[in-house]
Amino acid sequence: MKTPNIKIVGAGLLGTSLGLALTKHGITAQLADQSKANLRLAIEYGAGQETGSEPDLVVVCVPPDMTAEVIARELEKHPSATVTDVASTKAQIAQEVKELTTEHPRYIGSHPMAGREKGGPGKARADLFFARPWIIAAESNAASDRIEEIRDLALRLGALPQQMTPQDHDSAVAIVSHLPQLAASLVAARLNSANPSHLDLAGQGLRDTTRIAASDPELWLQILNQNAAQIAPLLSELSSDLDEISKSLSDPEASGSLAKLHAVLERGNQGVSKIPGKHGGKYAEYEQVTVIIDDSPGALAALLTFIGEIDVNIEDLKLEHSPGAEIGLVELQVMPSSAKQLISSLTESGWRLV
Amino acid sequence: MKTPNIKIVGAGLLGTSLGLALTKHGITAQLADQSKANLRLAIEYGAGQETGSEPDLVVVCVPPDMTAEVIARELEKHPSATVTDVASTKAQIAQEVKELTTEHPRYIGSHPMAGREKGGPGKARADLFFARPWIIAAESNAASDRIEEIRDLALRLGALPQQMTPQDHDSAVAIVSHLPQLAASLVAARLNSANPSHLDLAGQGLRDTTRIAASDPELWLQILNQNAAQIAPLLSELSSDLDEISKSLSDPEASGSLAKLHAVLERGNQGVSKIPGKHGGKYAEYEQVTVIIDDSPGALAALLTFIGEIDVNIEDLKLEHSPGAEIGLVELQVMPSSAKQLISSLTESGWRLV
Repeated sequence: MKTPNIKIVGAGLLGTSLGLALTKHGITAQLADQSKANLRLAIEYGAGQETGSEPDLVVVCVPPDMTAEVIARELEKHPSATVTDVASTKAQIAQEVKELTTEHPRYIGSHPMAGREKGGPGKARADLFFARPWIIAAESNAASDRIEEIRDLALRLGALPQQMTPQDHDSAVAIVSHLPQLAASLVAARLNSANPSHLDLAGQGLRDTTRIAASDPELWLQILNQNAAQIAPLLSELSSDLDEISKSLSDPEASGSLAKLHAVLERGNQGVSKIPGKHGGKYAEYEQVTVIIDDSPGALAALLTFIGEIDVNIEDLKLEHSPGAEIGLVELQVMPSSAKQLISSLTESGWRLV
Repeated sequence: MKTPNIKIVGAGLLGTSLGLALTKHGITAQLADQSKANLRLAIEYGAGQETGSEPDLVVVCVPPDMTAEVIARELEKHPSATVTDVASTKAQIAQEVKELTTEHPRYIGSHPMAGREKGGPGKARADLFFARPWIIAAESNAASDRIEEIRDLALRLGALPQQMTPQDHDSAVAIVSHLPQLAASLVAARLNSANPSHLDLAGQGLRDTTRIAASDPELWLQILNQNAAQIAPLLSELSSDLDEISKSLSDPEASGSLAKLHAVLERGNQGVSKIPGKHGGKYAEYEQVTVIIDDSPGALAALLTFIGEIDVNIEDLKLEHSPGAEIGLVELQVMPSSAKQLISSLTESGWRLV
């Protein structure tokens, strides 16, 4: 690949990480940011430099609701460059860019599906994009050589480029990312009025369903607002199921009442089985083996070393803590064909299974 | 402790696990089950025997909506025994027992907070209760010597007994267990109508928020129905927040519209920070360090061995998979005081951080 001149606008978490990744691959990016402090910090970290020759590719990494405006400005400032961005929604931004400038055909949006709960250049990492999907949200009439430039960038960083239309992208993230975010916030919001001693009984279920509720409210306000059209029908379906459940629980004697609650639980069963597991397998196909270990990193290392030696492949692993106890429970997901061997080897060697 | 005569009624997952745990601690329980096949299987596994002398303690381990009736029968069959159960809700069962028999003062409910997604005697494990909370749901006028018998049982099995009223128990599990279960089912139910290719973009957020939607619908129908009174107000609060969000997203220009969406996200932030972390610390206090490893159990073992050697304590660990990539991302939670040392040691030794 020919080495492109790349300009990054916005030296926050994503922009700085992008700069660091390019530096690592021998490309010095040109960096720009409204905040002189952010810019200086990113440059000191080694994410690029302030000056550079005319860019081939501009990557806009500013907050979602400033993105369209900055894209339009960069399209006009660099009349032959391809311009892309990294925002989490794509259709509304593409529409706004069209309205803002006639230079819009050189804009092709993208969405590297990478991020961390905490933002800012200080949290940036060169490997942030490594092995993550990088969606290229191209309209069907987009120029293929410009798509290729963005694909090259993604591949250089070790990301997994995947092309779809902006509309398709937005409808995908509405269900895999935005709906879960809202559900987590809604459940977590209830915890504020809970008796604190009741929360001491929290197990992995509550932790898992609410973990992403810790995300940045300002960022998510912008994301959700930009994707409102795709999220709304999902919320309305959810709300109608919720009403059914509430009615069912308030009057269980009514005819068909429990059948409706049962149907939602059944559809939940079916829905979760549709999520692909590791390597495209279905999660539901795995068998869970739970092992009790001492609460020390050495114990988990010893367990995994043992499993490596008996040559069993772990599809997934989760540590679960017992509230108030100095032990950990390791939930291993394995293929059913390996489960029997794993269980008997572990038991014979004195590991404690739950 | 004096060795008690224990009778277990119901040889499913919990009853059989209880029998196995008692066998391990030198106590042969008397087992009973309506299903001859279940009973024979549990006995073959070593969970106890069919006959026994008059029990001191009867533990009822049948499905939730048969529990009250079986408790009443056992109270009358064994006129001096203490009777307890293991169902996930407590107030309604206690009420039904009162209505069914004048022998009710010898019943004190309990709820070992342990279980597995799959049921049946074949999934039973002697260590199922180890290091798990075991709630003893006793009314204020309960006889303390009978409470003591149940506490002794829990302690023998390595569980962590904790006493509260049935009402307090039910209100605690409504928020830490029943609400998350319903939210997970409601989100997962949406996946049935999703474009399957969109689900290929699922990340850890969707997986975590929907994992428990895989639970048994028949069992959960009974649990939710028995705790309807405690769940209803939580669902109604959730529903009203959901309406606010839907209105806000459908008309973002309306005055105060975005402020309402923002408020729910903020309250989600605050709520999740109230969940206790390991050893009573708050999850929000930990710092996350994410390491890229090869997708093999050996690689994770090597990472944890390394971390054990530099003497950094891991508060929590989660494996995250990159869809379509043969690598894994290990999310480590550590105390902020250890994060800097961990990051620099890992980086110096060539580990790749995200």
